[in-house]
Amino acid sequence: MPIAHIHLIEGRSDEQKAAVIAEVTAALAEAAEVSPDAVRVLIHDVPKANWGIAGHSAKSLGR
Amino acid sequence: MPIAHIHLIEGRSDEQKAAVIAEVTAALAEAAEVSPDAVRVLIHDVPKANWGIAGHSAKSLGR
Amino acid sequence: MPIAHIHLIEGRSDEQKAAVIAEVTAALAEAAEVSPDAVRVLIHDVPKANWGIAGHSAKSLGR
Amino acid sequence: MPIAHIHLIEGRSDEQKAAVIAEVTAALAEAAEVSPDAVRVLIHDVPKANWGIAGHSAKSLGR
Amino acid sequence: MPIAHIHLIEGRSDEQKAAVIAEVTAALAEAAEVSPDAVRVLIHDVPKANWGIAGHSAKSLGR
Amino acid sequence: MPIAHIHLIEGRSDEQKAAVIAEVTAALAEAAEVSPDAVRVLIHDVPKANWGIAGHSAKSLGR
Repeated sequence: MPIAHIHLIEGRSDEQKAAVIAEVTAALAEAAEVSPDAVRVLIHDVPKANWGIAGHSAKSLGR
Repeated sequence: MPIAHIHLIEGRSDEQKAAVIAEVTAALAEAAEVSPDAVRVLIHDVPKANWGIAGHSAKSLGR
Repeated sequence: MPIAHIHLIEGRSDEQKAAVIAEVTAALAEAAEVSPDAVRVLIHDVPKANWGIAGHSAKSLGR
Repeated sequence: MPIAHIHLIEGRSDEQKAAVIAEVTAALAEAAEVSPDAVRVLIHDVPKANWGIAGHSAKSLGR
Repeated sequence: MPIAHIHLIEGRSDEQKAAVIAEVTAALAEAAEVSPDAVRVLIHDVPKANWGIAGHSAKSLGR
Repeated sequence: MPIAHIHLIEGRSDEQKAAVIAEVTAALAEAAEVSPDAVRVLIHDVPKANWGIAGHSAKSLGR
């Protein structure tokens, strides 16, 4: 029953989020040896102005 | 001084969120034997496309 | 399918943790109008030296 | 390589978020004795209706 | 630069944790289209008494 | 009323954790323009085997 919280820079499409959910679930099921049915994945979209890298926001860094 | 982070599928009204805050605070105060004044509750609204159940998003599952 | 992360000062007994799980689950099921079967609660035990209140650790404050 | 998640009541400007990122990064680098380059800071904006203090939302408390 | 927090029932070996880190990193890099170098994965071991499923701890359920 | 969760590789002394709490609280109070009394800081110690960087654990990387 793994629970994963995935933090990503905002802007992904629903299709890309579906891929994240599918692939992370498969990875966790295999590596942790549990059923995929027991896996929960929550994606948190983080605005560029809210993500700090080495003291600067991703927005100010142009990422 | 318990701190609770509650993740819910987005779409709750402010009234329903107020009920979550009130009832979770009361539950924690009683079960953890602390004053309700010391409890903090943060609700995180999670879009359906971001919530993965058994490898599929809640959006694709029609929930 | 609410997921709750509860942060508590360490030192609770398994019985007290069971009460936190039971009561928070019931509170969430009622307030968010979901089945208790869909609720997950994870308790995070936080050492007193790791919990900061107004700039001081709970350990140094004698809590 | 510290990772900080900062939860704030929503409404801060990008300039204020940049200040939070810069100052928390500097504080962590100094106190944890790591390079600022290794620090990541994620700010989570929390709506007033989602932030519970002593059983009441920040919105209902007028904060 | 995705950051993943993975919550697992405690008891995994270091080898199994290494597999979780490697496979979740590869899954995120592919699905989110980023370099594996930019991925961070933090595993949180959760005691059975602290993990609540449908109102009962994993410990009491014998998992 | 900012709430900060700080994830650090385990092994810090209580004195170093106290410095993290004091300095992060001061940084948040100044940058977010709130009273230090309203700031909460929770430090999460993460074992080296649980911290993944670019697909490898900090333990395997010798950090």
